[in-house]
Formats: sequence, C-alpha cells, structure tokens
Amino acid sequence: MTSAAETFEEPTAAHDAPSFLSSRLARFALDLDLGAVPSAVVERAKLNILDCFGVGLAASTFDFGGVTLAGVHALAGDGDSPVIASGTRLPLRDAVLVNGTLIHGLDYDDTHADSVVHCSASALPVAFAVGLKHGASGATMMAAYLAGVEADARIGMGANGGFHKQGYHATGVVGAFGATLAAGRLMGLTEEQLVMAQGITLSTTSGALEFLEDGAWTKRMHPAWAGVGAITAAALAQGGFVGPRRAYEGRFGLYNVFAAHDVTTEPEKAVAGLNTDWELMNVAFKPYPACHFNHAFADAALALRAKYDLKPDDIAELVALIHEKQVPVVCEPEANKKKPANSYDAKFSVHYTMAASIVRGRFTLDELEDDALNDPTILDLCSKARYETDPTSLFPRYYGGEVLVRTKDGRELRHRETHNRGSDKNPLSTSDILGKFRSNASRVFDAARTEQVIEAVIRLDTASDLTGLAAALTR
Amino acid sequence: MTSAAETFEEPTAAHDAPSFLSSRLARFALDLDLGAVPSAVVERAKLNILDCFGVGLAASTFDFGGVTLAGVHALAGDGDSPVIASGTRLPLRDAVLVNGTLIHGLDYDDTHADSVVHCSASALPVAFAVGLKHGASGATMMAAYLAGVEADARIGMGANGGFHKQGYHATGVVGAFGATLAAGRLMGLTEEQLVMAQGITLSTTSGALEFLEDGAWTKRMHPAWAGVGAITAAALAQGGFVGPRRAYEGRFGLYNVFAAHDVTTEPEKAVAGLNTDWELMNVAFKPYPACHFNHAFADAALALRAKYDLKPDDIAELVALIHEKQVPVVCEPEANKKKPANSYDAKFSVHYTMAASIVRGRFTLDELEDDALNDPTILDLCSKARYETDPTSLFPRYYGGEVLVRTKDGRELRHRETHNRGSDKNPLSTSDILGKFRSNASRVFDAARTEQVIEAVIRLDTASDLTGLAAALTR
Repeated sequence: MTSAAETFEEPTAAHDAPSFLSSRLARFALDLDLGAVPSAVVERAKLNILDCFGVGLAASTFDFGGVTLAGVHALAGDGDSPVIASGTRLPLRDAVLVNGTLIHGLDYDDTHADSVVHCSASALPVAFAVGLKHGASGATMMAAYLAGVEADARIGMGANGGFHKQGYHATGVVGAFGATLAAGRLMGLTEEQLVMAQGITLSTTSGALEFLEDGAWTKRMHPAWAGVGAITAAALAQGGFVGPRRAYEGRFGLYNVFAAHDVTTEPEKAVAGLNTDWELMNVAFKPYPACHFNHAFADAALALRAKYDLKPDDIAELVALIHEKQVPVVCEPEANKKKPANSYDAKFSVHYTMAASIVRGRFTLDELEDDALNDPTILDLCSKARYETDPTSLFPRYYGGEVLVRTKDGRELRHRETHNRGSDKNPLSTSDILGKFRSNASRVFDAARTEQVIEAVIRLDTASDLTGLAAALTR
Repeated sequence: MTSAAETFEEPTAAHDAPSFLSSRLARFALDLDLGAVPSAVVERAKLNILDCFGVGLAASTFDFGGVTLAGVHALAGDGDSPVIASGTRLPLRDAVLVNGTLIHGLDYDDTHADSVVHCSASALPVAFAVGLKHGASGATMMAAYLAGVEADARIGMGANGGFHKQGYHATGVVGAFGATLAAGRLMGLTEEQLVMAQGITLSTTSGALEFLEDGAWTKRMHPAWAGVGAITAAALAQGGFVGPRRAYEGRFGLYNVFAAHDVTTEPEKAVAGLNTDWELMNVAFKPYPACHFNHAFADAALALRAKYDLKPDDIAELVALIHEKQVPVVCEPEANKKKPANSYDAKFSVHYTMAASIVRGRFTLDELEDDALNDPTILDLCSKARYETDPTSLFPRYYGGEVLVRTKDGRELRHRETHNRGSDKNPLSTSDILGKFRSNASRVFDAARTEQVIEAVIRLDTASDLTGLAAALTR
C-alpha cells in the first residue's frame, strides 16, 4: 500500500516531534512579533484588554469580588502582584486567581463565538501579572496575550462542541493552554520547555458545568484557575519537569479525554491559519452582562417593546426560538430558568432575559440586583416564557435568536436577531466599547482615573513596561 | 405511580441538601474522632504515613525530586512550610506540591486496590502541611488524613473504573476531594463551607493519562496538584465562595463528567460504610518501586528464577497472564514496554519488570537506574516477553498475575501469584514496612535520624503538635 520511499521516510517519534501541535503552538507564541501583526488586530486587542479591565473593575463591587479577594488573601498573604481596583498585592498566581475571577465573574467579558471560549479572561490576567513581574514591555505583553487568545480560539474550535457535551466549561479547560503560552513567552521558556509546559497543563486543567445546576459561583473562577495552573506548569517546565508532547492529539490528550467520545474532534484546527488569520477579530464584545447566548433575545425583546409599546400585562406567551445546542445552558432546567435563585442563575436564563428586558426596557447590571430578581412583574412574565428549538439558527458561528410574543388580544409579534450584537456581522463600535468601559469603571473610579486607564491601554503597544498600567488599575 | 403522601413529601432542594453526598462526607470528616477509631486502624495509619514519608525521602535523591523543588522554589520563593528531606521552606501550597510529588513520584507509595487510587499521596501532604500551619495535634492531623483516605477510596470505588476508562488518572481526580476534606477539617471550615469546598474542588481537579504514552513525569504531580486545588478550594469556601452542592452526583458532577459515559457509576458508594468499615485496611503497601499491577509479576518471576535456577539465556519466551483492564497501563504500546525510554516507562512495563527480575534477581530502585535500563541482557529478555489476557484474574480486587516461561530446551514453567503481596490476603508485615522505610530513608538520612522519624510517626497520635515530625523530616 505504501511505496518504498514512503516507508523509508516514515517518521520516528523524534522526527515527528516538530509537527506535534504543542511544538507548533510553542513556536507561534515565541515568534509572535507585535510589529508584524496587522494594525487593525493590534488596535482591536487594546479594546479587548480595556473591556476586560473595565468588567473587572465593575466586578470588584459585587459580593463575589470581595469574597474571592478576602479568601485568597487569607490563604496566601501579601505579595508583589497587583489586584484590579484594590490596594492589596498578592503572590503572582494568587493575583491571577483574583483578577481572572473579577474579569470573568460578571459574565460580561468577551467571547470567541465558534469555540464558545472566553479567551481573554485567562490570557489577560496571566499576561498582565507575569509581564509586570518579568519587566516586559507593553508590546511583549500584548504579543503574549494575543498568542494566548489565538491559541485558545483554535484549540476550542478543534473540539467541535465536544468539551461542553462532556460537561466541561471550555473556557476553563481550553484557557489553561493559551495562558501557558502567554506565561511561557513572558517567563522566557525555550520552545522545548514550552512544549513540556503544555503537556503539564494537560494535567492541571479543569472546569465542570455543575454550576449551571444550582447557581454556584465556580464558573467565575474557571479562567482564573486555568491561569494558576498555566503559570505553575510553565515554572515546572522551565525547571526541567517533563510533560507529555502530545498534549492535544495524544491517545490520552486533551481531545480524547475532555471531549465527549461521540463527538468527532479535529485537533489540526488548533493550528490552522496561525499568523495569517486572526481569530481575535471573531472575539465578540458583550453588550449585556449575561451569557452571550441571551444577547440576541435581549435585543429582540427590547425591539418588540419599542416597536409595539408592549406592556407586560399585554402578553399571553413569550417564546424564545433558539438553537438546540444552546438549550442546556440557558433554557433548562426550565423551573430554575423561570425563577432564578440569584443573579448568576438570571444571567443564564433566556426566560429572565426576555422578561426583564420587556419589563424594564433595558438589561444592565441593575437588572441583576435583588430588587429586579424579586420583581413580581418580571417573575410573572417569566412564568409565561418558554422556548422552542430553531434549526435555522446560525449557531455556533452566530448566537442569533428570535422572540415571539403572543398577546392577550390575539396578535403574534416577532423579532429576529440573526447576528448577535458584538459579533463581526453586528459589531459594537469603538464608541460603544469606550462607553461600556466608562460605565463599568465609574463604579469604582472617578472620571480622571477612568481616562488614565484608557490612556494606559491605548498606548500599551509603545509602553516600555507595565508599571503605568498597574498603577492606573489599582488603588 | 406515586401516592399522594409521596408527592407531598417530595423533597425540595433545601430539604434534600443534608443527604447530598458532599454533606455526608463533610459531616464524616468533621466528626471523625481518632479516639473512636479502632486501634488496629490507627496503628495501620501510622505505617501508611511512615511508608509515604520514606518513599518521599528516597524520591528526593532522584532527578525529578530536585527538578520539582527547584522549579517551584524559583516561582514561589521562600515560605513557612517544610519540604521533605530539604532545608528549604515554601509557601503552604507549594510545599504540598513538592511533597506530594516526592511521595508519589517513584510510584512506590500505597494504593487502594478496588479504586486504584493512591489515597495517601494527596491526603498526607495536605494533612501534614495544613496541620502544621494551623497548630493541629497529631491526633487531629491523623483524623484529617484518615478522613481523606476513607473518602478517596469510596469516591474512587463509585466510578467502577469509569475515570480510567475516560483517560483520567483517578489518583489525581479523586484525591482532590479527600484532600479537600482533610484541609477543611484542619482549617476549621463549617459543614456548609466544606460542602461548598467540595463543589469548588470539582472545578480544580484534573489528571490525564497521557504520561503513559511517552514516559512524561506528569503522573508524579497529580496527587500534589490535587492538594494544591484542595487547599485553594477550602480557603475560597471559608471566605464565602459558593460551590455547587452536588459535586459528585450532580448532572455535571464528578461521576457524570469525569467517568466514561458507557460505564455505570454508583455515586452512593462514596459514602457506604463510613465510620463502620475502614478502607484504609485495604490500602496495599508496595513491595516494589513500580506500578502495583507489576508486583505479582516481579514476585512470580523471582519465584521461577529461584525454583528453577533460571538464567536469561535459558529462556525462549516470557509470557505475562494479566487481566485485560490492566493491559492499557502496563502492556501497551508494546514497543515502548519492551524498550522503556526511562525509569518511568520501566515502572509501567510488565515486560521490563519480568525481565529485570529474572536477570538481576531483585526489583529495587537500583533496577530503575540507567545501567539497568541499558543492560543488553535485560533488553534482550524484554524482547522475548509478551502478554496474554487472563479472565480468571481477581482484578481489581487483587492485582494478581502469572508468569509463563518457555525454555529453549522445551520446558513450560509457570508461577501464579493470585493475591499481590501487600494486599490484605498477602500482607507485608510491620517488619517488612519498617525495613522498606529504613532502606528508603538511608538514601538521605543516617541511622539515628531515620529512627527519629520512625519515633515521631509511631507516637503521632499522642503528639501535641507536628513540629517534632517536621523537624525530623527536614534538614
């Protein structure tokens, strides 16, 4: 079946090594030169970074932000690494644990659509903390961050939904690898060490979806824990610890172990188009502080409310038309979704998102406060909400959605958002993103400090180090 | 189908909470009183603890021991927690990371047979470091350790092999939960906090089997990483962080996410017989520094060598008769097993274990040194080794094995070890265990210091704190 020449060239393990996925990702991360990246990508990356820090600043005012910082500080004590919106400094990995939880904890951070991975939430806290510790320039820190995002998006796409189907939160499981590349780049690992580090990360990465069942907070910490494992793995590899080479494609590698066995994964996607395509451009900003899957439903509900001057009392039935793969996350178990136990449940309820948008005429952080969660008008409308699956949805490429309202007087009103706002087909403007940042930052900083953070991020690619950014973000 | 009374009494989530597995395990761990534990169990626990520390002392002389300590120290800097055989002190979790890797790294530590979990390797470093930091008495530290072991053994049995089948190393995945119970007990968590902590641990636990493919070192750190996650989870829960309540039995809990979906798991096993049966008594000591699955084959090969005065040159074929479920771990891929790339590969090769035992007349740490791995006589005999599956094996209850030798002069010689040595049917004696400890400790300590460690462990249940033990174990 094979010619003599082919047989002769059959690769040995040693010959094969450079083509292992972890080798190719390591080379990409170590060689990435921000000066060679298209300027549109560099400028976009600044907006992603700014958006994440803004969400983190806002999160510091919520219960989980204070609880996480206090719990980690009690365990770890003081260190040298800054915590967003705080005067406390923590040991390196503990600062990453807190900052990552702040950035992801409101579910208001950016998401790569095809992979359903919140890439920035693990790559950014690691790049920021490790870059600061190692005296990296802004451009090097941005290159490390970008390498992490590009890798995460691709690694996630390779799963074809298999991680979620097995019961994992892909953001945690995948994010650890991008964070490893970011950490390894900034810590000065060699290519071989960075290959080992990815293999070690395979043994530290985690993140189960059980939080969906009772509104627990664990999703919030998944990208942060990914970062803790990533830095630990990079340090062990730098010291000479040996990890497996086939972290992704191996018999017991990421795709075979963490993806449901009835899903066909495509490990080669993890490296497709590196250095030519920039998946960062497909990382969507969130207009609403809720699961990305709900955004089109908020926009559709708000559009119907505005167009028909809808009042809650007019409505007999409220139906979400949604792709079947989104159902387990935001539609079921339906009893919980109709009566969210807390703000976190509410973020993952399409029923609540539609109802609150129609009752309040907006969906902001205020609609996640207790007075909204206990509002009888919203809850009454939630009880009239249900879902139907929609095979015409463009999910996972776009998180579209359609809302159908049946009124008590017999009308059937529909609004469809094919492309969720924040995606490439329906992008937020720079002005929208700056507005979102200012709104978030205003919860903790005055206007002057808010503009100082914007300045530090917008000039990041020319900054000689990260001390200015760190000073702007902390007290 | 249900009576009115049953319907009426259908539990709500709140009513149900106390019967969730995490609640029952939390109560067990918090209430465990060493004074109420049968004295045979307490005395056995001391031997397990001594055995683990001995293996850890020996491991400090191997490459991976120094590499792990150096890598972690470079990242974390100095702290207050002792490292086995070292004068360096590290931050709490980093000391656990190193000590756990030392205890498990030689694959010479104890194993609970039915679950195939190395329970002590995660529970002991956590109980030791956290107990020392919080000023626990020896009895309280032992109770925390024992709670961890009893929980791990049961949680592991509940999987019915499903974790391994999915591609996980159960020692890491399961060990994080027992370590959480041990840490939570010693840190003073309430029952509710300890329930939350187990839920958080579900999002930190990990450990893939990919190390089997190329002899990587990651298995060595799995129980150590379990301990790092456990302490982090306990601290977050103590600070008020919310974890999911159904860490084990939930829709996206441990059994549904980490076990292969074609294996029927039994979550209730996780709490069966708590406080009445002591699974510690089913934790087997290792007579050989190799995967437990290989021990019966070393004993059988040594028995044949002794009985027939076998020489390597007499042998035409060497066959291991082994249970099919053990094959992926110690028999395949067969090319690697016949020519181990390093000592770690050798520990997981039934071919190498049989061959080295026959050539050298023993299987000790010396048979894992480079001169043995490159010995042409051993490698020649490896090339004549193969395996056949044995449906009569008592695996997983016992890790038995039979060796069949076909000699060049046409004889067929057999020896069967039905119950592996170290198991309850074929136990190591106290004298064997003390001998093993002294041999291990002698690699780093003189005889006086060796006896000092033995004294500290044998008197542990009456020690007012752990400072004496810590002093004996460090430089």
